[in-house]
Amino acid sequence: MLAVEEARARILAALSPLPAETIALAQAQGRVLAGPVAARLTQPPADVSAMDGYALRAADAAVGVPLTVIGAAPAGHPYPGRVEAGQAIRIFTGGFVPEGADAILLQEDATEADGQVTATEQPRAGRWIRKAGLDFSAGERLLQAGRPLTARDIGLLAAANHPWVSVTRAPRIGILATGDEIALPGEPLPPGGIVSSNAHALAALCLAAGAVPSVLPIAGDTEAAFQGMAQAARGFDLLVTTGGASVGAHDLVQSALAPEGFERGFWRIAMRPGKPLIWGRLGAVPLLGLPGNPVSALVCGVLFLLPALRRLQGRAETAPAFQPAIAGMDLPENDGREDYLRCALTRDATGRLVATPAARQDSSMLKTLAHAEGLLKRAPGAAALPAGSAVEVLDLIAMGV
Amino acid sequence: MLAVEEARARILAALSPLPAETIALAQAQGRVLAGPVAARLTQPPADVSAMDGYALRAADAAVGVPLTVIGAAPAGHPYPGRVEAGQAIRIFTGGFVPEGADAILLQEDATEADGQVTATEQPRAGRWIRKAGLDFSAGERLLQAGRPLTARDIGLLAAANHPWVSVTRAPRIGILATGDEIALPGEPLPPGGIVSSNAHALAALCLAAGAVPSVLPIAGDTEAAFQGMAQAARGFDLLVTTGGASVGAHDLVQSALAPEGFERGFWRIAMRPGKPLIWGRLGAVPLLGLPGNPVSALVCGVLFLLPALRRLQGRAETAPAFQPAIAGMDLPENDGREDYLRCALTRDATGRLVATPAARQDSSMLKTLAHAEGLLKRAPGAAALPAGSAVEVLDLIAMGV
Repeated sequence: MLAVEEARARILAALSPLPAETIALAQAQGRVLAGPVAARLTQPPADVSAMDGYALRAADAAVGVPLTVIGAAPAGHPYPGRVEAGQAIRIFTGGFVPEGADAILLQEDATEADGQVTATEQPRAGRWIRKAGLDFSAGERLLQAGRPLTARDIGLLAAANHPWVSVTRAPRIGILATGDEIALPGEPLPPGGIVSSNAHALAALCLAAGAVPSVLPIAGDTEAAFQGMAQAARGFDLLVTTGGASVGAHDLVQSALAPEGFERGFWRIAMRPGKPLIWGRLGAVPLLGLPGNPVSALVCGVLFLLPALRRLQGRAETAPAFQPAIAGMDLPENDGREDYLRCALTRDATGRLVATPAARQDSSMLKTLAHAEGLLKRAPGAAALPAGSAVEVLDLIAMGV
Repeated sequence: MLAVEEARARILAALSPLPAETIALAQAQGRVLAGPVAARLTQPPADVSAMDGYALRAADAAVGVPLTVIGAAPAGHPYPGRVEAGQAIRIFTGGFVPEGADAILLQEDATEADGQVTATEQPRAGRWIRKAGLDFSAGERLLQAGRPLTARDIGLLAAANHPWVSVTRAPRIGILATGDEIALPGEPLPPGGIVSSNAHALAALCLAAGAVPSVLPIAGDTEAAFQGMAQAARGFDLLVTTGGASVGAHDLVQSALAPEGFERGFWRIAMRPGKPLIWGRLGAVPLLGLPGNPVSALVCGVLFLLPALRRLQGRAETAPAFQPAIAGMDLPENDGREDYLRCALTRDATGRLVATPAARQDSSMLKTLAHAEGLLKRAPGAAALPAGSAVEVLDLIAMGV
């Protein structure tokens, strides 16, 4: 059986970033930049005042000596003339420092009366002046390709005068739940049936990651239903199936799909929960076959589907972001499969992250997964560890899943 | 000037959770539950097999003694009869354990030939059987009100047979940038003008937090423009303005809006960046007046707008989630304003989060904010700290902003 890291590497190696599309900056939150973006202007465009006060010549301004206020320079309304000796300009935060002036007298250090202003503190040349280009200069690269855009980035791109932005197209993900025994929530349930939860949970995972999911009609465990998959897969950037990965179903998938152009990359990985993972290609469309067990499907979704979506989006970082933590309880030795324990995440008195696995880790327990805050990773063959030992975790809340 | 904590408390105290709406479970990712949700069924609905193998009576099953395979119980297809002494049923993961059986013989511990199965390992009663209700039982409360729904929660609600879900209505946020000097990206820019970046950055902040923003046309710094705000505010759950909070503009806002029903809650807080914050009410609509400076507007957005959105959504947790970190460099003593330093976040060799402020923290530097990973909080009057000291940070990436 393949190691988790190797399985992920093979999935990522088989995928490429999607092409770019142009969207309005106002729609770009969470989208991934397709190329670097440079500033279209210089910010601030000229030397500007950092405070409300008076622009003047430092050499002139002595405490107690009145200067004539010859005009004003609010933000957006530059003073058109020049400040000469004995003169000052009323200025406000963001106002352009007028020609001739080299200092700002703060308004709290000044008294103004009868068109004259008098300093009560000596202003210093250059103080409270933001030089042109302090934030950025025209032509300067502001953001790199592969970056998911935050609200802060959108502010920066707006400030740099970009109404449009080039981002990778959002991945279109087909999601196909298979199984005779499942029915969607609220639908009539056959005797012995189970309500289908994987497809919509995985669709939500896709939405949270910036992809566009399509939930396909449930496919039964028949050769005909599997053959329909090849048709259903067309037009997607990735087809995600759940179920049909156990030994019996796998045989069926193999026999039904081989004539439809299915090429298996790998099947089964050394992981718990999630052993029966399939990776391959159905004609031109990459296929990720997740286990039918809901906990396994979602944990594999976090470990394989999310990185795949990041690759398709062209994100610079694709690997899950493991964080250091300490074990909140003793951990038994691990067998040959990489284990992901659903855990609570808390902080100890010194601020360290503490990961405490749920008492029972049966892979059928979806409620335990929903209430977990993290996944504690146990390497294959890891030795028993006492509480307080260093471990690695995925913070599911921070990952948005 | 008001302390940050007190300002946030006053904002939160003035807001209430919005009423509920019913949406499809498939649309519920990120939405906030309006009430608790209970399971509509028991999961698993009956005792089921945790593995592929044979269901039988443990008392019967001795190593080397063949049992007659009388039928099969795949998932979703319960065996209708009863297992008697000397008999076994082929069973698959998730298949109902048939009446009479009390043990699962794993398929890897069995040999099957000519309709008979023989154990190579002794099965134990109860082993590899998941009891009915192991995950959850009908009527059991699964999720509490105030919870933002993750992909995992959506899986759990689907499994519990909920096609619909009751969530708080998404907050409708009006966003109004004010100022004579600003123009939207790509629009003709007046001489001395600045490209407006706040409105769309704040809209992105709202989108990331699950609110529905409307960016209103820019309002100039005139009495008539401010009077139009009262009209524009109608129908929003919160009106967010940027700019118009400096001393001069504030006077204008006060004089223009008083006849329109503006009641000021507070103005100016002991914070950097972000002193000129306004909180009040314009008629029936709460009004949050953020500074015009883009860095101040976004930092105040993180510290005040996000908690306000969480309150409107009915989220259980509203306060920003500060995390412990250590200072990556010496920090000077702080003055009387609570300071938020844009910082990089890294991890040291022992896994501790290290917050290193950008060298220059001028509040006009938006690029520095976009490239920051966190905000390092400095309390009012905090003493100088050497590198390595304990500090508190907000992880902007983990917060999704």
